[in-house]
Amino acid sequence: MKASVIAVGTELLFGQTVNTNAAFLSEKLNIMGFDAMYHFVVGDNPERLKATIKLALRDTDIVLLTGGLGPTQDDITKEIVAEVFGLPLYRDEKCLAEIKSFFDDRNRVMTENNLKQADIPLGAKIFHNASGTAPAFAIEKEGKHAICFPGPPREMKWIFDHCASEYLKMLTDKEMYYRVIRTIGIGESDLETALLPLIDGQTDPTIATYAKEGECTLRIASQRTSLADAENAVNEMIVEIDKEVGQYIYSLDDEELNEVVVRLLNDKKLSLSCAESCTGGLFASAITDVVGASAVFDRGFVTYSADAKIDMLGVLPDTIDRHSVVSPQVALEMAKGAADKSGSDISVSITGYAGPEADKGRLAGDAYIGFVYGDKVGSLAVSTRRSDRVWNRNYFRLQMLRAVYLLLTERL
Amino acid sequence: MKASVIAVGTELLFGQTVNTNAAFLSEKLNIMGFDAMYHFVVGDNPERLKATIKLALRDTDIVLLTGGLGPTQDDITKEIVAEVFGLPLYRDEKCLAEIKSFFDDRNRVMTENNLKQADIPLGAKIFHNASGTAPAFAIEKEGKHAICFPGPPREMKWIFDHCASEYLKMLTDKEMYYRVIRTIGIGESDLETALLPLIDGQTDPTIATYAKEGECTLRIASQRTSLADAENAVNEMIVEIDKEVGQYIYSLDDEELNEVVVRLLNDKKLSLSCAESCTGGLFASAITDVVGASAVFDRGFVTYSADAKIDMLGVLPDTIDRHSVVSPQVALEMAKGAADKSGSDISVSITGYAGPEADKGRLAGDAYIGFVYGDKVGSLAVSTRRSDRVWNRNYFRLQMLRAVYLLLTERL
Repeated sequence: MKASVIAVGTELLFGQTVNTNAAFLSEKLNIMGFDAMYHFVVGDNPERLKATIKLALRDTDIVLLTGGLGPTQDDITKEIVAEVFGLPLYRDEKCLAEIKSFFDDRNRVMTENNLKQADIPLGAKIFHNASGTAPAFAIEKEGKHAICFPGPPREMKWIFDHCASEYLKMLTDKEMYYRVIRTIGIGESDLETALLPLIDGQTDPTIATYAKEGECTLRIASQRTSLADAENAVNEMIVEIDKEVGQYIYSLDDEELNEVVVRLLNDKKLSLSCAESCTGGLFASAITDVVGASAVFDRGFVTYSADAKIDMLGVLPDTIDRHSVVSPQVALEMAKGAADKSGSDISVSITGYAGPEADKGRLAGDAYIGFVYGDKVGSLAVSTRRSDRVWNRNYFRLQMLRAVYLLLTERL
Repeated sequence: MKASVIAVGTELLFGQTVNTNAAFLSEKLNIMGFDAMYHFVVGDNPERLKATIKLALRDTDIVLLTGGLGPTQDDITKEIVAEVFGLPLYRDEKCLAEIKSFFDDRNRVMTENNLKQADIPLGAKIFHNASGTAPAFAIEKEGKHAICFPGPPREMKWIFDHCASEYLKMLTDKEMYYRVIRTIGIGESDLETALLPLIDGQTDPTIATYAKEGECTLRIASQRTSLADAENAVNEMIVEIDKEVGQYIYSLDDEELNEVVVRLLNDKKLSLSCAESCTGGLFASAITDVVGASAVFDRGFVTYSADAKIDMLGVLPDTIDRHSVVSPQVALEMAKGAADKSGSDISVSITGYAGPEADKGRLAGDAYIGFVYGDKVGSLAVSTRRSDRVWNRNYFRLQMLRAVYLLLTERL
C-alpha cells in the first residue's frame, strides 16, 4: 500500500523546525511494508491544506498527518481532514473528560479553547494521547485512510508505537519482522565492508547500516507471508553477522548503551560511580536516565575546575602541575578518588577539552578516561579531532559508557 | 513572491535522512521576504517528480529543488525540470572543464557517467559548485523560476550563500525581519489568551506561538518594503507583548535558558554550584553545555542516594527520617551543603521522583528545588503529575534553571 506523510505547521515553512516527524514515520512505514511516496509540508492554511490532502489521497492509500491538532485558532488539521473525508465533527465525551482531567491533575485552569481538542470526526478510531491534550485518530472512507497525530515528536511517537502501528498492521497482509543491532567502536564504511559478503545479492532479509553519532546501527528486516518465517530469516542472519562483527555489538535488541550498562551492573550486583570534568554531568545523567539506576549508582562528582578535582576527589596538585589537568595521570587519580569516596565497585572518570577551544598546544576533542575496577586500573585516550562542543561531549559520554561496558564484559 | 522547496531522493522517503535542506532554504527564503508555501519530498521517479514540479509551479512563483543532480542513473532532477520548462539540455564546456579538473586535482579517474553533470538547460544561469562536481543553476520562463541545488547540505548551503541568494535578491522588493522570544512558566494556550488582543486582527507583524517541552516560544515577524520599517514594527510589537507577559519572558533573542543563566552569571561575576538527586547530573550538564561555563561553574554534586546526600552535602539523617528524602527540608539542606562545600554564590538543588514510579503514597513528577543566594534561602515545589521519566527530568532541569534565572533577575 502506498502512503504519504503531511506535516502541518507554519513553523516548518519558516525553517525554525526541522521535519523529523516525516523521517520517523517514513522509516516505520517502510519497515511495516508500506511504500512512502511523498512528504508534504504545508502551513496552517485551510485551502492549501485541503489541496494537499486531496493530492495525497489521489496518489496514495494512507495519509499520515502531523500537527495542527492543538487548542489554538491556527490548529485546523482536524477540521480540514474531516471536511475532505465528508465526516462531521462531534464532541467526544471521553476525550473531553481526559482533557479536563489533564488540567485538573496539574491544578491548572483550562481555557475555553482547549475544548475543541475533543472534537473528533464521526466514526474515527480514537488514539489516547498519554502525554498531551490533543487525541490522535484514524479515519477511513472508501479504502482511503488518514491518521492524524499531534505535532510534538514525543507525543506523535508514543501514539504511533502504542496505537497507530496496530491500526496500520491491520491494513497489510504482509508480515514484517526486524531487529536492530547496535555497535560501537567501528565506523559505518568498515562495518559495511565487513558485512559485504552478507549484504551483496541479499534481497530478504535486508541489512541496512546507519551511522549514529559515535556509533553504528544495523537493521535486519524480513517480509514474509508468515511471521515465523520472517523471524527465522532475521535470526539466522544475525548469527552470521555476529560471526563477522561480534566484538563491536553491544545490543541485539536496539538498547541504548546506558541501558545495557545499567542492566549488566544490576545483573552482576555491582555499583558504579563517576568523576566528570569536560562532560560536566552528562555521564551521570545518562546513567540516571535509566529506570533502576538507583540500585547500582549512588553518586557522581562533577569536578569542573582543578580545585574541585583536588577538594572532592583528592587529586594531587603536584600531579596536575606536572602532567597538566588533561592527562592520563589526572584521569586515573580522579577515578581512584571517586572509588575511594564512594566505595563503589567500578569508577570511571574523564578529563579533556570539550571545545570549541583547548589550552595552548592542545586539541579540542582530546580527553582521557580513567577507570578502576578491582585490580583493573588504567586510562584510555580519546581524540575526536573536532571542535564541536556538543558532538565532543556526547562522544566522550559514549566512550565512558563503552569503557564501563568493556570492563563489565571482561574485554578491558 | 511565493516559493516552494522540493527535495528529491528516495533516501528521504526511507526515513534514513532528515530533510534539513528544506528548513535551511525556508528560513533563508522567509528572511529575504519570500513566502515559503510548501515543502515536498519525492523519490527518484520521473512521473511523480514531474507532477510535483508542475503542482509547485502552479501555486508558487519560485521552486527550489535539492538533490538528483549527480552522475548516477537515478539522478533525474535536471532532466525533468528542463522538460517541464520546455528547455533543451546542452553540454556546457566550462562546466565540463570544471568537472574534469575536479578529478584531475584529486588524482582521481573520472568515470564516463560524470559527463552528464555538465548538461545544463539552455539559458540557465549557472552557479559554480565549489565543493562538489554537480553545478547548480537557475532557470526562468514566463515569470516562473526554478533553482536546482545538489543534495549534500554542505554543497547546497555554499551555493545558496554565494550564488543563489544574489539571484533571489533581484526577484524581490520586500524585506523581512523577525525575532523569537522565549518564555517559561506559562502554557501555550494561556500565552495565546493573554496576547489575544494583540494577535486578533493583526496582519503585520504576525505573532505565532509554539509550545516546546516545558516552555513556549513566540515569533514576531514583519514584512515591509524597507528593513528599517520591518524592524521597527517588530520591536514596537515586542514592547506591547512585554507589557502583557513580560514576567514569563527570559530571552528576546531566541537564547536557551541555560545560555541566559550562564550569561547573567558571567555578567554579574557570580558563581553557581548544584546538588542533584532525581536529575542525576542533567542540570550540571546543561550548565557545562554552554561555552564559558567554567568561569561561573566549578563543581556539582550528584547525590543519588540518601547516603550520598549525607556524606557529600552534610544533610542530616534526622531531616531525612523526619521529612523523607523527597521534602523541601532535604532540598534546602542539599542547597546549603552545596553552597558550604563549594563556596559558590548561588546553589541550587533538587530531590524528587523522576518516575515512572514513586515511593508509596507519593507521586512521580513531584520534586522540591532548594536554593541559596546570600540571604535568599528557600525551596520550591514542582509537580508534573506525569510518570514519564525523560519528560520529568527535563522539566525538573528547566525548573532549576528557572529558579536560578529568577534569583539572578531578583524575582525570587
